[in-house]
Amino acid sequence: MLRTHKCGQLTAANIGETVTLNGWVQTRRDLGGVLFIDLRDRSGLVQIVFNPSFSGDALQVADRVRSEYVLAVKGEVVRREEETINPNMENGDIEVRITEIEVMNAAKTPPFFIEDGVEVDESLRLKYRYLDLRRPEMQKTLMLRSKATKIFRDFLDENGFIDVETPILTKSTPEGARDYLVPSRVHEGEFYALPQSPQIYKQLLMVSGLERYYQIARCFRDEDLRSDRQPEFTQVDIETAFMDRDELLGMMEQLMVKLFKETINVDIPVPFQRITHAEAMDKYGSDKPDLRFGLELVNVSHIVASSGAKVFASVIEKGGEVKVLNAKGCGTWTRKEIDSLEPYAKRYGAKGLAWIQIKEGEFKGPIVKFLSEGEIQQIREATNAEEGDLLLFSADTKQVVADVLGAMRVKIGRDLGLIDDNVYKFAWVVDFPLFGYDEDAKRYVAEHHPFTRPYEEDLELFNTDPGKIRAQAYDIVLNGYEVGGGSQRIYKRELQEQMFEMLGFTPESAREQFGFLMDAFEYGTPPHGGIAFGLDRLIMLLAGRTNLRETIAFPKTASATDLLMNAPAPVDGAQLDQLHIRLAPPKPVVDKN
Amino acid sequence: MLRTHKCGQLTAANIGETVTLNGWVQTRRDLGGVLFIDLRDRSGLVQIVFNPSFSGDALQVADRVRSEYVLAVKGEVVRREEETINPNMENGDIEVRITEIEVMNAAKTPPFFIEDGVEVDESLRLKYRYLDLRRPEMQKTLMLRSKATKIFRDFLDENGFIDVETPILTKSTPEGARDYLVPSRVHEGEFYALPQSPQIYKQLLMVSGLERYYQIARCFRDEDLRSDRQPEFTQVDIETAFMDRDELLGMMEQLMVKLFKETINVDIPVPFQRITHAEAMDKYGSDKPDLRFGLELVNVSHIVASSGAKVFASVIEKGGEVKVLNAKGCGTWTRKEIDSLEPYAKRYGAKGLAWIQIKEGEFKGPIVKFLSEGEIQQIREATNAEEGDLLLFSADTKQVVADVLGAMRVKIGRDLGLIDDNVYKFAWVVDFPLFGYDEDAKRYVAEHHPFTRPYEEDLELFNTDPGKIRAQAYDIVLNGYEVGGGSQRIYKRELQEQMFEMLGFTPESAREQFGFLMDAFEYGTPPHGGIAFGLDRLIMLLAGRTNLRETIAFPKTASATDLLMNAPAPVDGAQLDQLHIRLAPPKPVVDKN
Repeated sequence: MLRTHKCGQLTAANIGETVTLNGWVQTRRDLGGVLFIDLRDRSGLVQIVFNPSFSGDALQVADRVRSEYVLAVKGEVVRREEETINPNMENGDIEVRITEIEVMNAAKTPPFFIEDGVEVDESLRLKYRYLDLRRPEMQKTLMLRSKATKIFRDFLDENGFIDVETPILTKSTPEGARDYLVPSRVHEGEFYALPQSPQIYKQLLMVSGLERYYQIARCFRDEDLRSDRQPEFTQVDIETAFMDRDELLGMMEQLMVKLFKETINVDIPVPFQRITHAEAMDKYGSDKPDLRFGLELVNVSHIVASSGAKVFASVIEKGGEVKVLNAKGCGTWTRKEIDSLEPYAKRYGAKGLAWIQIKEGEFKGPIVKFLSEGEIQQIREATNAEEGDLLLFSADTKQVVADVLGAMRVKIGRDLGLIDDNVYKFAWVVDFPLFGYDEDAKRYVAEHHPFTRPYEEDLELFNTDPGKIRAQAYDIVLNGYEVGGGSQRIYKRELQEQMFEMLGFTPESAREQFGFLMDAFEYGTPPHGGIAFGLDRLIMLLAGRTNLRETIAFPKTASATDLLMNAPAPVDGAQLDQLHIRLAPPKPVVDKN
Repeated sequence: MLRTHKCGQLTAANIGETVTLNGWVQTRRDLGGVLFIDLRDRSGLVQIVFNPSFSGDALQVADRVRSEYVLAVKGEVVRREEETINPNMENGDIEVRITEIEVMNAAKTPPFFIEDGVEVDESLRLKYRYLDLRRPEMQKTLMLRSKATKIFRDFLDENGFIDVETPILTKSTPEGARDYLVPSRVHEGEFYALPQSPQIYKQLLMVSGLERYYQIARCFRDEDLRSDRQPEFTQVDIETAFMDRDELLGMMEQLMVKLFKETINVDIPVPFQRITHAEAMDKYGSDKPDLRFGLELVNVSHIVASSGAKVFASVIEKGGEVKVLNAKGCGTWTRKEIDSLEPYAKRYGAKGLAWIQIKEGEFKGPIVKFLSEGEIQQIREATNAEEGDLLLFSADTKQVVADVLGAMRVKIGRDLGLIDDNVYKFAWVVDFPLFGYDEDAKRYVAEHHPFTRPYEEDLELFNTDPGKIRAQAYDIVLNGYEVGGGSQRIYKRELQEQMFEMLGFTPESAREQFGFLMDAFEYGTPPHGGIAFGLDRLIMLLAGRTNLRETIAFPKTASATDLLMNAPAPVDGAQLDQLHIRLAPPKPVVDKN
């Protein structure tokens, strides 16, 4: 009994037709010997009815079915009695009078209800993921993901990009996160690594003259997981030759326009705002600012540099800074309400949280007495403070001030209802620094990765002030999330060597790790650059979810466990022998890093 | 100097336009102070000219460029002088008179020529893959592959299939080939395995009610590699619920029709021929017969069962068989030519090769004297032997006879020119046996995999003659290659348990390995089935290549080595410590299995 129609697609237009349906029992109600079942398939629901007057033996069979049984049924589509029409159901004006039934499979009672918004421990959902994925919101998310990847592919295909698969069994590289390793059976004592990204392969494809490459690529990082990380994740990986930054960014904007229009029917205005990394950090305390609201940070360091408020002046003396977030309208908060912000600030590294209320025309708060009349006046002007405002101060290193006030800005913005969840505000953050400085290792590290091209005009800073060199790198941010990033790449051997040297490689170690790439640069490498989108996060934002696991069919937990299959798991010794490895003797675990 | 046009797309229609091009120097000719360069980009070639009369300083710059330099040039498109038109070049009637040039990058002399059909050791090509991929035939293959995957996706999307990504870090399973393992850092002593296929995940997605799933999925097998295997390979993975075999096969035929039409413009007739596994083995000695030609094998066991030819009779007595391949028209071969077939037969397990020539109306050959007049007459009729034919005999176990004559059939077919390389002959091989018998392990093994559904009517054979149970499995074969295969799956717990028992699992070991799947079968699993296509092999056939490595951007060698990146490679001890493993002490290698 193969289906002729899908449940959710039946409408009044089918009235009078004899149809065969296949699906799952969603609900079952027995009303005085007449049996009503909502039958569910991927397309939706339809009500089927078993009545002694037309169902014959099928009623007896139907009588023993329960939730989630799999049925094949045949019957006639009829209009429901006026009083039984269900306005909450898309096809609530019809039902199917069943004359034949086949129970394709039985079902035990599921451990949770197959419906949206189910309140159940996530680990139970992950263990029974095959039931969890039956829930309409999960099906919708999987379908959205499928549609979104199709849109990416269609757009890139239309624009001449070639989809190329790059290896999963590849080589361990020292920069970046920890690699997952795969012992080789054939080559004793040697290992493959799973790729953290196809970065080097895509650059080599540009050396190959492929000009426009893309791949929806699985990537792997053996990191300690936070709620928004997965050990394996998917990126839309793109690389181009002979295309400059602005042409690439413009094309990617069109891609986002198409994606948001065709999935959730939202019009995204272009061009996207562009903001330098320096400005983003200065105004928003973040390199992925949420631009749906204002509340910009104000630097008051110059005002309080020699203030009587020693807590400010001493920080500036030590090279730190003092910034203010004007929480508009929070000046009426009670002391208790204000104090409740302090633990939040401390979570981001603050030692405390200084504040000033503007109440009844006056500046009030514990630090006011240390500030001069003139300083107060200047702060008022700089922060545009008005009656009823609350000024939140952070005085610390540049990084801590950014972390604290950046997080505080988002919290206050959300508390004040300044964030509209229906708005999608894209921006490009550009001109990242090429290097960060690693205080522990006492050396520069690549802010992006070692292949990022610096601006031509900043090259002279290599010998004088490397920390000031700007990279031709760009991140695409959406509502406070980084959803993608990329750069123009180095394509000359000498510059790449200089880069490796600055990152602490000896010529020998650079050659050992990246010799093939530097060789490649000598055989006619075109100028090239690219970008990668984090697909999981984009889908999360498109689906209006807050957790990456909701966007992945079979995700792993924060301890990188697959609760459904029970992976990882012990393997037998013979397998390890074949791979020429053995387990290290167990030792008391102090630190799993 | 960003390009305004692509080299290969310039035509006479562009005459008079000023264009900017980016690309590589293909060839360079200096004719009396005038410099001609064929400039190449992904789209093709165009001739550019530097002449003192219009190029100015650009000529001096151009004078030092060599093959594979990367250039940006600007100039006017003009019609060539009549006598310099190159009819072998698509745009050989035009050239570009260059007025500006920028050398974007220099190039050393490549280790081999960047042109088709280059005669160079494959390991050199793999080491410099980024140069190898510049060759037009490699670029064409990569583009064909990209196009083919797009066609798969478009077709499946149009037919309601949902693209779902399944995990790469998953669990080791005991059936099938060897797994690649990945040690866990977080879970000491435990391992992930890379999937040999997404088989279980796709079945679980059917339990989830997704109904139609597909994925272009990376799969991994740690096998000893033959020329047509890769440690990682790609399959187009498909699964459906509520669809029976015939509907699925019909849909897949339409998919192949679209694929072959839109890539290589070949019309594939449907429906495909269907042939049972038994018939394929009987007539062609192969479960993936090349059906572009006849030369069917003929079973003469019944004729020679009690023959004076002991070499035949004794084989049949021991349960073997005797079959004949009639090599039409080879009866005129010399003894030496015929004898040259013997080593070939032996490679496939034959102990020798008996034969009979029909020459001048007579049966000739070493075995003729052992056969009676009546036997010869019957063999003549059975094999339709005529003047000038050559009958090749194989007498051995069923398997050896199939291997020997199956291979011989293809060889003779090719030698006789019976195989038309422009013909694409698809067929479905159906009704595979559910089990094979492993003589070493003294138990049944799954011919396909343990989830394959047997025919309902064969279920009673479980207790009497399991080897005779037919599986609802199907392979799709093309010109002697298996390009895909699948089955309808078991979806009832009891049958799945029976299957595991037959395969030597204890209830406990079945539960430990596949408990989640058997649990899943209890919560309302629909009837389901699917198929997977070997993408690499399909592309190989579409591109007219004979080696899978030609279809993969960055393939591995037969010893699973990536010659470009030098993977696998040793890793440092600290990495192993983090993974709680150490290397086994080296020992003399006797057998790498």
